[in-house]
Amino acid sequence: MAGLFVLRLGHRPARDKRITTHVCLVARAFGASGAYIAGVRDDSIRLTLEKIVGTWGGPFSVEHLPNPLGFIREWKRKGGKVVHLTMYGLPLRQRAREISSLGEDVLIVVGSEKVPREYFQVADYNVSVGPQPHSEVAALAILLDRLTNGAWEEREFEGAKARILPSEKGKAVQQLR
Amino acid sequence: MAGLFVLRLGHRPARDKRITTHVCLVARAFGASGAYIAGVRDDSIRLTLEKIVGTWGGPFSVEHLPNPLGFIREWKRKGGKVVHLTMYGLPLRQRAREISSLGEDVLIVVGSEKVPREYFQVADYNVSVGPQPHSEVAALAILLDRLTNGAWEEREFEGAKARILPSEKGKAVQQLR
Repeated sequence: MAGLFVLRLGHRPARDKRITTHVCLVARAFGASGAYIAGVRDDSIRLTLEKIVGTWGGPFSVEHLPNPLGFIREWKRKGGKVVHLTMYGLPLRQRAREISSLGEDVLIVVGSEKVPREYFQVADYNVSVGPQPHSEVAALAILLDRLTNGAWEEREFEGAKARILPSEKGKAVQQLR
Repeated sequence: MAGLFVLRLGHRPARDKRITTHVCLVARAFGASGAYIAGVRDDSIRLTLEKIVGTWGGPFSVEHLPNPLGFIREWKRKGGKVVHLTMYGLPLRQRAREISSLGEDVLIVVGSEKVPREYFQVADYNVSVGPQPHSEVAALAILLDRLTNGAWEEREFEGAKARILPSEKGKAVQQLR
């Protein structure tokens, strides 16, 4: 894959602020380059991620999308591929290798409550991380883990001001600049 | 491991309802037998999980804990082991095999905001799913994935009323009884 991006659908600030924030944090930590958020505009998510990037490094971008379906169609017209995470889709283990070996940018679409049928239609892959109800945050982490072959465990971020030194019992943070 | 259980610390109903619900749903979907929730009592989480178990199967239990530190000490006294998920801990890849091969019940402790120092001290393992800020929901999913060696992909639940039939484009649900 050339680059990995995440599109979060249907954000509602009151109800979804923390889940959408977790979606973006997971996208960054597990190897995506940026997130697009559709639904009600909520700049607080972008500001939170900018703070995280300021301290722990990047790059990672967050952008509001007024027209997600149009964006996806344009993404595909430019040659990008689209993976839609849904508990109704085909098992990840059946599709992970094929998706990993794509040469194009991959957009991972993550729903909130009910995802309209058009997204199932427009996606190149409807993929499930288990056929059970759980969490878009968890599903995204597992998908990115499989697509990057666990590369998040060693990932270095650019421009970090701080870095954690793993420890057995405490909290150790190294200031870098 | 004999059995896997999750302890969610510091639940605050207004702020954490959805994240704690996702923690419990992930615990169930990825192979834990139950969750304990500490913090402010909030029966809505248990009721949500009972509904999920009613439709999609179990077993999975949710219980409120008034005294989590006392509960952990008692857990250890009975021979159980404790894994605390924290971005400050030792990398999962260094500890996953050792934890998987434990013969005892394992309690996975998942914090919310600031976790008091006592939990770092009492844990047998402080483990990080990457040294980056992201999400306790994602960290739990990846830990359970590693500890169960991906067994969630094939897991069958007991007493399910419905089952998803994986599909390429749509939503197919089979009613079982």
